[in-house]
Amino acid sequence: MQDVRISLTGGVDYHPMTDGSLSGYLGGFEAVASILGGRPDQWRVSEVGDGNLNLVFIVKGPAGAVVVKQALPYVRLVGDSWPLPLDRSFFESQALLTEDECAPGLAPKVILFDKAQALVVMEYLTPHVIMRKGLIDGVKYPRFAETLAEFMAATLFKTSDLYLPAGEKKRRIALFCANAELCKITEDLVFTDPYRDAKLNHWTSPQLDDLALEFRSDGPLKAAAQAMKLKFLSSAEALVHGDLHSGSIMATASDIRVIDPEFAFFGPMGFDVGALIANLILAYLSQIGHETTPGARDEYRAWILLQTVDVWNRFAARFVALWNAEGRGDAYTAELFADPAGREALAAEQRRYMRRLFSDTIGFAGCKMIRRILGLAHVADFETIADKDLRAKGERKALRLARSFLVDRERFVTIEAVGEAVVAADKSN
Amino acid sequence: MQDVRISLTGGVDYHPMTDGSLSGYLGGFEAVASILGGRPDQWRVSEVGDGNLNLVFIVKGPAGAVVVKQALPYVRLVGDSWPLPLDRSFFESQALLTEDECAPGLAPKVILFDKAQALVVMEYLTPHVIMRKGLIDGVKYPRFAETLAEFMAATLFKTSDLYLPAGEKKRRIALFCANAELCKITEDLVFTDPYRDAKLNHWTSPQLDDLALEFRSDGPLKAAAQAMKLKFLSSAEALVHGDLHSGSIMATASDIRVIDPEFAFFGPMGFDVGALIANLILAYLSQIGHETTPGARDEYRAWILLQTVDVWNRFAARFVALWNAEGRGDAYTAELFADPAGREALAAEQRRYMRRLFSDTIGFAGCKMIRRILGLAHVADFETIADKDLRAKGERKALRLARSFLVDRERFVTIEAVGEAVVAADKSN
Repeated sequence: MQDVRISLTGGVDYHPMTDGSLSGYLGGFEAVASILGGRPDQWRVSEVGDGNLNLVFIVKGPAGAVVVKQALPYVRLVGDSWPLPLDRSFFESQALLTEDECAPGLAPKVILFDKAQALVVMEYLTPHVIMRKGLIDGVKYPRFAETLAEFMAATLFKTSDLYLPAGEKKRRIALFCANAELCKITEDLVFTDPYRDAKLNHWTSPQLDDLALEFRSDGPLKAAAQAMKLKFLSSAEALVHGDLHSGSIMATASDIRVIDPEFAFFGPMGFDVGALIANLILAYLSQIGHETTPGARDEYRAWILLQTVDVWNRFAARFVALWNAEGRGDAYTAELFADPAGREALAAEQRRYMRRLFSDTIGFAGCKMIRRILGLAHVADFETIADKDLRAKGERKALRLARSFLVDRERFVTIEAVGEAVVAADKSN
Repeated sequence: MQDVRISLTGGVDYHPMTDGSLSGYLGGFEAVASILGGRPDQWRVSEVGDGNLNLVFIVKGPAGAVVVKQALPYVRLVGDSWPLPLDRSFFESQALLTEDECAPGLAPKVILFDKAQALVVMEYLTPHVIMRKGLIDGVKYPRFAETLAEFMAATLFKTSDLYLPAGEKKRRIALFCANAELCKITEDLVFTDPYRDAKLNHWTSPQLDDLALEFRSDGPLKAAAQAMKLKFLSSAEALVHGDLHSGSIMATASDIRVIDPEFAFFGPMGFDVGALIANLILAYLSQIGHETTPGARDEYRAWILLQTVDVWNRFAARFVALWNAEGRGDAYTAELFADPAGREALAAEQRRYMRRLFSDTIGFAGCKMIRRILGLAHVADFETIADKDLRAKGERKALRLARSFLVDRERFVTIEAVGEAVVAADKSN
């Protein structure tokens, strides 16, 4: 964290940056100016934010470029009727720095964090595109599975009790507890609103009206979703990214980066892994709307399916490898398991641990799939399908599958079984 | 919390109170002086601390009495080679206040908290005795089960996600994260040291040398104990007392109070319930050493057994009743379960929840029993048995039973099954 310039100059009130004001502001920071080169009046600024919560600028100078992400005091998607704390920018910068420590080079480098302006200046990634767009366009990313497996294994393991001393972990938990309002968004939008008549819910209507209604009166489903919410509220396992979907991944054929950890907090590991797997499954089941002729995307479907299986298997293997190599935290005190009987018992315990984590993953995946179809924030994978009947066909399959992830969770004990269920769901009518 | 006098006067450095200095100090606080009556030179002070960590004084005046508990900067049991933070006194006072809010009248009232002196002045309980002493002496406490069931149900439920809004719970978690050093004592002494060759371990020797050695090389047992430790480290379910054994209960025939929550933090509910049940079981299995003739304590054994069953059953019923009546927290959002299907699904989920909590309870009980026989801090129930062979006979039964609680946890699905196992263990050779 030593190299990051943190500006804490007070006096200047927060104000949202504009294309016109940003260069002058950035010109005051040598760390930024030296990357961009030239003078501020030579810098080209364009606002590119397509997210829900923030302003995002790309600033290009003669020598280089940076990205500037500034929090807005309200939810951009909804408007200023939904205020949101600016300090999420602080948590995002803290999470980016932690991620870079745990999994070097897999998140954008932080160049400057300005608390007063709720603004992070970070590395400009080019020619990266948001992976969700690539998944819609049928683009393969050869390094996806290995990179995301490494990102998740390293960030989750190294912020867990398996790696950190208990006191250090408690210090970090306390810090991120203050990101409560961002957590609250997840608690409401992911775990609760899709299962009640919430004002901002929407879905492909009238095609899915029946399922939306059915889910709102599905007792076992609601209980299962809320059981996952309880884990989200009370399992402080590791620093989770908190929003790890394909829209938080920037990709090229040779490089994969994870962005946007403003929802970071100490929560259940399965929430990150489940979010990623859910979004791969949504990508799979939405291919029906993106192929020029039926079956044209079959090979691409197979690629997505393989990534889904591969990313879990690589993640699990890497996580256990880290545990064996660097398990110096206060959980499972290594000294107790140094003898042969101990090694065997720890190996058995690791299998139990990973089965439990897999079960959490599938439960969270189910919640994430449902909220993207019946809740407030949808995914472009489905939203870009203009033919509403076709879109709803895929969405219906995703909803049914997600319900089984939650209600019949014990059926899914391997990622291969999940993969088979995805294929079966896709082929069902 | 409004009525409590909190003294934050700086300038005066911390100094341990003595019988000689305490009256003069207390005389400066009207809230204390008005309870004691008369002048400070009329107050009688006696240091009565028999615990491991603190100074405890009883101060009596013409009109009344108070208890003064002052933290020492080291572990009293071990000496100044083991330093300990004074701010545990702050966490104790915070926990006492929270307990009194959740379960009014079941913890001593806080009269004054002085942060600089790490000192809490509280209600003097009389003619209460430490319940552990009563259990050794064969005294029955008719109100034990109902009171402890209420204390645990109310304090755990009302500090959990079932009752608190998520943001408020996160604020409290962050506060108690700073009690990390006290948590670390539990992490080491309860979950780790009994399973390794730790310097401060001791046991009835040579009688238990074989079992002490056996446990240190028992892979499945060590893995199970450390799985409970992981829950202790990462499950922020509720504000737990953190040390809820029979030595933290003061009792008369008509009144039961819970004292000494300095280990309080947001942890797994089963840790409190398990501690209590473990100590009842230790009391049961130590009766062999306290009866004048074999069988003389049979009726008392039966009473302890009934309390063990009763306190769990009452706790579980009260916890679910609170959930149904006051389940306004962010977990299991009540609105989702208001329809008949929802009510049925929530009832099924509550049964699952209580099964899981029971399983945690039994696992933690196993850890607590073992640490009291093979670890640093033992219990008077066994320590006061002068005949080492007899003592070891009971301890051996407790150790075997505790091991089965950890390694065969799935065998114990009801408290009655646990009770039967206790009786069988006691009758075994």
